[in-house]
Amino acid sequence: MFDQIERRKDISKSAYKAEVADLRNQLVVVQQALRHRDFPVIVVFAGVDGAGKHETVDLLNAWMDPRWLQTHAYGEPSDEERERPGFWRFWRDLPPNGIIGLYLSAWYSRPLLARVKERCSESDFSQRIEEINAFERTLIANGALILKYWMHLDKRSQRKRLESLSANRLTSWEVKPKDWEHWALYDRFIEVSRKLIRSTDMPDASWQMIDSSPERRRSLDVARSVLQSCNARLEQEHLEAVQTPPFNATPSPAALESLDLNRPVSRNTYKHELTSLHARLGPLQRAAREAGISTVLVFEGWDAAGKGGAIRRITNALDARHYQVIPIAAPTDEEHAHHYLWRFWRHLPRAGRITIFDRSWYGRVLVERIEGFCTDAAWQRAYQEMNDFETTLAGANNVVCKFWVHISKEEQLNRFRERESILYKSWKLTDEDWRNRERWDEYVHAVNDMVHHTDTEVAPWTLVEGNDKYFARLKVLRTVCDRLEAALGWINESQAAQ
Amino acid sequence: MFDQIERRKDISKSAYKAEVADLRNQLVVVQQALRHRDFPVIVVFAGVDGAGKHETVDLLNAWMDPRWLQTHAYGEPSDEERERPGFWRFWRDLPPNGIIGLYLSAWYSRPLLARVKERCSESDFSQRIEEINAFERTLIANGALILKYWMHLDKRSQRKRLESLSANRLTSWEVKPKDWEHWALYDRFIEVSRKLIRSTDMPDASWQMIDSSPERRRSLDVARSVLQSCNARLEQEHLEAVQTPPFNATPSPAALESLDLNRPVSRNTYKHELTSLHARLGPLQRAAREAGISTVLVFEGWDAAGKGGAIRRITNALDARHYQVIPIAAPTDEEHAHHYLWRFWRHLPRAGRITIFDRSWYGRVLVERIEGFCTDAAWQRAYQEMNDFETTLAGANNVVCKFWVHISKEEQLNRFRERESILYKSWKLTDEDWRNRERWDEYVHAVNDMVHHTDTEVAPWTLVEGNDKYFARLKVLRTVCDRLEAALGWINESQAAQ
Repeated sequence: MFDQIERRKDISKSAYKAEVADLRNQLVVVQQALRHRDFPVIVVFAGVDGAGKHETVDLLNAWMDPRWLQTHAYGEPSDEERERPGFWRFWRDLPPNGIIGLYLSAWYSRPLLARVKERCSESDFSQRIEEINAFERTLIANGALILKYWMHLDKRSQRKRLESLSANRLTSWEVKPKDWEHWALYDRFIEVSRKLIRSTDMPDASWQMIDSSPERRRSLDVARSVLQSCNARLEQEHLEAVQTPPFNATPSPAALESLDLNRPVSRNTYKHELTSLHARLGPLQRAAREAGISTVLVFEGWDAAGKGGAIRRITNALDARHYQVIPIAAPTDEEHAHHYLWRFWRHLPRAGRITIFDRSWYGRVLVERIEGFCTDAAWQRAYQEMNDFETTLAGANNVVCKFWVHISKEEQLNRFRERESILYKSWKLTDEDWRNRERWDEYVHAVNDMVHHTDTEVAPWTLVEGNDKYFARLKVLRTVCDRLEAALGWINESQAAQ
Repeated sequence: MFDQIERRKDISKSAYKAEVADLRNQLVVVQQALRHRDFPVIVVFAGVDGAGKHETVDLLNAWMDPRWLQTHAYGEPSDEERERPGFWRFWRDLPPNGIIGLYLSAWYSRPLLARVKERCSESDFSQRIEEINAFERTLIANGALILKYWMHLDKRSQRKRLESLSANRLTSWEVKPKDWEHWALYDRFIEVSRKLIRSTDMPDASWQMIDSSPERRRSLDVARSVLQSCNARLEQEHLEAVQTPPFNATPSPAALESLDLNRPVSRNTYKHELTSLHARLGPLQRAAREAGISTVLVFEGWDAAGKGGAIRRITNALDARHYQVIPIAAPTDEEHAHHYLWRFWRHLPRAGRITIFDRSWYGRVLVERIEGFCTDAAWQRAYQEMNDFETTLAGANNVVCKFWVHISKEEQLNRFRERESILYKSWKLTDEDWRNRERWDEYVHAVNDMVHHTDTEVAPWTLVEGNDKYFARLKVLRTVCDRLEAALGWINESQAAQ
């Protein structure tokens, strides 16, 4: 791939100037057109040191309107970043719709260098490539335009470039000892890059190979390509329609129907077990905090199923300084202007802490599917996106527990009636709850699909028989305790006793 | 103040239980009422170790609905926090309107301990108290309800409390060696607390002294007080009307009128000077970055005055990896649900970086004042709030430059006409621009007031004669260079030459 890069002479200064003037105007015009569209543009620069990556980014900043442009470069992660999954720093920096983000030393840089310096094995490298692909795939599928430029210099040119930067008083600061170290590894760098480029070259996010030697031509090539790609995308009106993958319409196993909802627990048993589960959970939270094990709890379930009550029976045992409860309702406008998972990424806990989501990303395959708030393609591919997301969490030392709190249709009616009659519960019942109730069977179908497609080893679903609140709360608490004990490597007493 | 705390026996378990049931319901009801109001509730807990601060917070979490409650506790600042003004970590954690935030070891804790351990001087302590007051004052003035609880234990009770926590297997982990160190400093702690409490006891944010010994009574006292204060505030409809401070109606000096807008610069001179200013700015940015000196640039000015052009002439010389341009338009809904300065705090640069605001917090005393988007009281007190904000920035190693780019009314008309006729500029001209133009004289008045009230030593205004774009851009660039050189302690060549 590097051999096929066409070697060309640079163009003349005057030809360059003439073209730049027009290009700049067009770039600003395209920025204005983008501002009113519902997708972001993500431009990634990678390649060898000295190949003009950051000069090109500076140039695009100079040519375009910096107000609708973001530039992100990545050095060592901050401690807040280190305490979350590796991609958290990129998720938090994703541009909102309408904005162009330029990315330097971003998600390609560390895996590449780690492999070049043999700090990670070939199979680790493959896994990191798979993470990159999953990240870009979900961004693209949800609308993002991703442009990737690989800035290439042959070995001799790289040496000459570093030498000429060093010789110039104004640029010598740019050349660090590290750059020469990397130069010595040039052949290895190219070899690893080959695999990286080949494995991340996707139809909608293909690499543009740029010959960096002729500087003016390089600048024009990148700028023209950005312009053309944006314009091409602006003309595409109905992107999604073409992308709909076929959805397997075979009914999922009837997970909900097989639940025995009749599991009464006496008040005495409840009180006794609640106390002992709380006594278990407190020390587990502290141990997890010290071990840096984070916890993500997801609560889904029917309206009035008792999600809030179950959450409170958990938080009651926790140190309030180290957990947060995130109620998920309609997205804010900032959230709406981002990938649908962005609003969840932003609340991921720091190491050793707990985030409890009261409703979650599963809204996409439940309410959004049923109400038609997103396209069929969107909710159908979401299963895979959620599995990827949760795999990432689990891989970054997070315990992920997901609960579907289930009640019968009759029990829901009883609870709605109760809410109507009790002052301090009346706010809980809305017209929407009644509307959702009318679509009960559709929800059952959607929940069965959801459980079937997203019940994974690392993030299993716990279906909670909720007609008896006591039973439900104990089961939720017990599940959280068991999972934390397993993650901490403690002897799981409840399982050992069985 | 500590001596006046009433010593009372604890109440019986049964009386406690009876009251708690009712209290909990009322707390949940008040949370629902708050959710629809346009202010946040900020509850601060301070006092000696072992006085039950975090137990009380845990209890409030148990009694209330955790979904509309946030708990924030503060250990060592993260590196992202350390690189910003000290209060940044509190600003970023402010609850949005409708939400209750509980704060532990927050803005009182560090100043108090620093003074107790004599790590800061009496005058430093006084200054930190002043910062606390300015922080709370601006939150209150903009609607926040602040409740402050000082949890008190006498010296003997503190010892007993620490001993009893240590003796219990379930709680012994809570007692750290540090707690006993602090206990040895009890008298000193009380002495410093006296000053801290007295100096931060404000009419709208007064301290409630809580005797922590009787645990059930303590819990009820705090919960009842939170409930009553929220209810009292919910009944207050027109808070702001009463608070309007008198505004000095004496006209401010006519700063704008005295500008000589006719300052032509030839194209040759411009090109020459631009090149040399760019050559100055690049190394200054790098030196500031290494020195951890951050830069905040504020651009205000008439529509079409050339703010964007001036900004680009700065960014052209900068490394795109280390600055961001923040265009300020209508707030997002998340921003709208916070204090009006929150949206600016969130974009403050990390150490050594640059944030450029294209329009800024001064919108409050310009467009919001003139269009009546905020009350008179709000814009009138804003001058002081902005001065406090900028003093904080300057105190935290930020260079703050503020530019008003000025053009004549005729020149604006020429530029509007030009924008109408040039395709790639036409998006810049909106109906709003024409409307603003009709209120030219009101803006002149508001700008003169703004400059008069907020032209401070640490954050001076630079009025930029903008009829000639070349002149304006050079003046802006020169000012930024001069300020950075002064901050870096370099010889200021341009001044030395004068």
